[in-house]
Amino acid sequence: MRVVQKFGGSSVADAESIKRVARRIVASKEQGNDVVVVISAMGDTTDDLTDLAQKVSPNPRPRELDMLLTAGERISAALLAMAINDLGFDARSFTGSQAGVLTTASHGDARIIDITPGRIEQALNDGDIVIVAGFQGVSQTTKDVTTLGRGASDTTAVALAAALDASFCEIYSDVDGVFTADPRIVPGAQRIPEIGYEDMLEMAANGAKILHLRCVEYARRENVPVHVRSSFSDKPGTWVKQLDYQEAGMEQPLITGIAHDRSEAKITIIGVPDRVGEAAEIFTVVADADVNIDMIVQNVSKEDDQRTDISFTLAQSDGATAIAALEAAQSRIGFAQVVYNDKVGKVSVVGVGMRSHPGVTARFFRALAEADVNIGMISTSEIRISVVVDIDDIDTAVRAGHTAFGLDAEGEAIVYAGTGR
Amino acid sequence: MRVVQKFGGSSVADAESIKRVARRIVASKEQGNDVVVVISAMGDTTDDLTDLAQKVSPNPRPRELDMLLTAGERISAALLAMAINDLGFDARSFTGSQAGVLTTASHGDARIIDITPGRIEQALNDGDIVIVAGFQGVSQTTKDVTTLGRGASDTTAVALAAALDASFCEIYSDVDGVFTADPRIVPGAQRIPEIGYEDMLEMAANGAKILHLRCVEYARRENVPVHVRSSFSDKPGTWVKQLDYQEAGMEQPLITGIAHDRSEAKITIIGVPDRVGEAAEIFTVVADADVNIDMIVQNVSKEDDQRTDISFTLAQSDGATAIAALEAAQSRIGFAQVVYNDKVGKVSVVGVGMRSHPGVTARFFRALAEADVNIGMISTSEIRISVVVDIDDIDTAVRAGHTAFGLDAEGEAIVYAGTGR
Repeated sequence: MRVVQKFGGSSVADAESIKRVARRIVASKEQGNDVVVVISAMGDTTDDLTDLAQKVSPNPRPRELDMLLTAGERISAALLAMAINDLGFDARSFTGSQAGVLTTASHGDARIIDITPGRIEQALNDGDIVIVAGFQGVSQTTKDVTTLGRGASDTTAVALAAALDASFCEIYSDVDGVFTADPRIVPGAQRIPEIGYEDMLEMAANGAKILHLRCVEYARRENVPVHVRSSFSDKPGTWVKQLDYQEAGMEQPLITGIAHDRSEAKITIIGVPDRVGEAAEIFTVVADADVNIDMIVQNVSKEDDQRTDISFTLAQSDGATAIAALEAAQSRIGFAQVVYNDKVGKVSVVGVGMRSHPGVTARFFRALAEADVNIGMISTSEIRISVVVDIDDIDTAVRAGHTAFGLDAEGEAIVYAGTGR
Repeated sequence: MRVVQKFGGSSVADAESIKRVARRIVASKEQGNDVVVVISAMGDTTDDLTDLAQKVSPNPRPRELDMLLTAGERISAALLAMAINDLGFDARSFTGSQAGVLTTASHGDARIIDITPGRIEQALNDGDIVIVAGFQGVSQTTKDVTTLGRGASDTTAVALAAALDASFCEIYSDVDGVFTADPRIVPGAQRIPEIGYEDMLEMAANGAKILHLRCVEYARRENVPVHVRSSFSDKPGTWVKQLDYQEAGMEQPLITGIAHDRSEAKITIIGVPDRVGEAAEIFTVVADADVNIDMIVQNVSKEDDQRTDISFTLAQSDGATAIAALEAAQSRIGFAQVVYNDKVGKVSVVGVGMRSHPGVTARFFRALAEADVNIGMISTSEIRISVVVDIDDIDTAVRAGHTAFGLDAEGEAIVYAGTGR
């Protein structure tokens, strides 16, 4: 069987960890697998290199920053290959470029265009364990070294698994898998043994940090089964894969999990003239500043003054940019005031089961009301309900949702969509 | 004018040094030059990476070690490019592989086969300052990353200067140039303003550490003028180049300088049967162990026992290997004993002027005798006389030679071959 394994920076923080990871890889090889490993930079290497760059230049060019940062994975990949060789197995390390990871030329945030894994195939045919430096590739047009954006080693691994037609991709980290909610907030949160791509996409997009959105998107598009598991134990983790409950004879859960996100902020624009095209103008300003918007709410216009308020949420990291762009356009658009609030958070109930089951929204809102949580904004998709709440209410809201949908391990039994409960 | 500049690790030890080097490079660019810079790894980076490798594997594979170590120059090259960009100039960094440095596949000690500097030419045509990671290349056959052996960034620089048809190559380090002797031993040692390739080859081969032998060989073969100078001052250094004294109307010095080498050891094989082919057999054993030999002396055979002694010198680092190989062959060859002595050193008088001037050997030996230095072994070339002396006599021998040939700055006047003095 051909498998791709990915180990994160915390799994290879020092020489001892590297040796431990090497033993785990060798164990998989000894089971008869062809093993390709994608590796992140050791521990804080990327941060250390970024600091070094800052000392030399306050605003380094992205091409050179990529040249610098890719040294991190090159180092960990070479060291891991040495450690495996030391156990008596053949291993060869490859940079992203050598591994054939072809990307766009967008330094610091390049996208994988294609993978031409000729050298990897050759090494596998030779019986070698292959180590690939994650997070990096080479621009198809400029031939310059690129990085895929932080945390993108997961995406490298899934993309390689697809290109190599691997049976599955294992993502090792310091957590045991995907849980029904963050176990630090909900003690009764349960590991999800299997989760479909759609649910995982909604979980990742709404704050579950276990897998990066692009990685899940890639896995869904290429139909790569992903096993998210701990590098510190042998316990099974969570399989992210195509789920067909009817075919498998399983009951489909109504709700898969509760995600939350503390990284959002809310901007409210007060006193917007209630004319056609005003909202479009405001969001054009924001889009031109390269700021992504999550939820939008437009209040009902007050009869007497022909003005309305518009609220939207965005990443806190984009807050200053958005405020500056809006204030620059204030006199032209003619609104009264911009109010910024980063003391908010988003709580989302996710589950493909809700498609065929009405009443989920009502049940969630009732649970929030009973827990005395005030809802600031609401947004829904076919398989998700999200609310913005005060930052101090996030934990309460997560727990209330988790209990209301029967996800607690030692609470009421798990509710399945098919049971109609 | 197109120039290649090389800066060593001590010139880029930290962020401040990198900025200082950036300013110097920009100054050359502002003079209207096309500038290509070859850079070593920062300070102790290579040693630190080697230590890290040792922690993971006591005997790392050379391919992986090269993958690891080349990260060092990648980091310094990217940082230097950033620092130059920060000064408002365009700079682009390239790995050895990107710069087209094609080498043999001999990891850790690869030789440059060819340079295909297409991307560098393109960057120069765009008006960019080009930064190349030194010490590294890519195997022409395996496409794996290689290193050229420690200190080989000098060779990269000279090879690039030749491939790019540069006017000259500047080698920046923490010394002011090539001196008539090591100034730490001889306070009156003088900087040599110009030195021919042949003299520089002999100086480098016999212990002067300022330039690596392969770098000088490459410069001579390609006729690249090399300017060895300090990165900490603007003073002129030493030009290593084709010298024709008669054409230039200069008097040729009798002696160019005194080199010394503390890294040698002496092996004496006692009681070798005095038969035809015995010496050949001994040196075949040593050669098969991959040990290079410097000087050889065979004592006159003693009439009574038909046995002789053979001494030779070699690098101390090869001592254990040579001894083991010889002892393994002892019974077959039938000698009595192997004696190892690393408490020796070599002192060499170098100068193409001695070709046309007899009496140099006599003058050197007289000076050593007057200084009470005992000569252990002697070897000569057309332009060099070397003696092996006791390690405690090295400094005395260097000073005696320096004075005897009139090289002292505040001693007698410099002796020129043409004057017959």
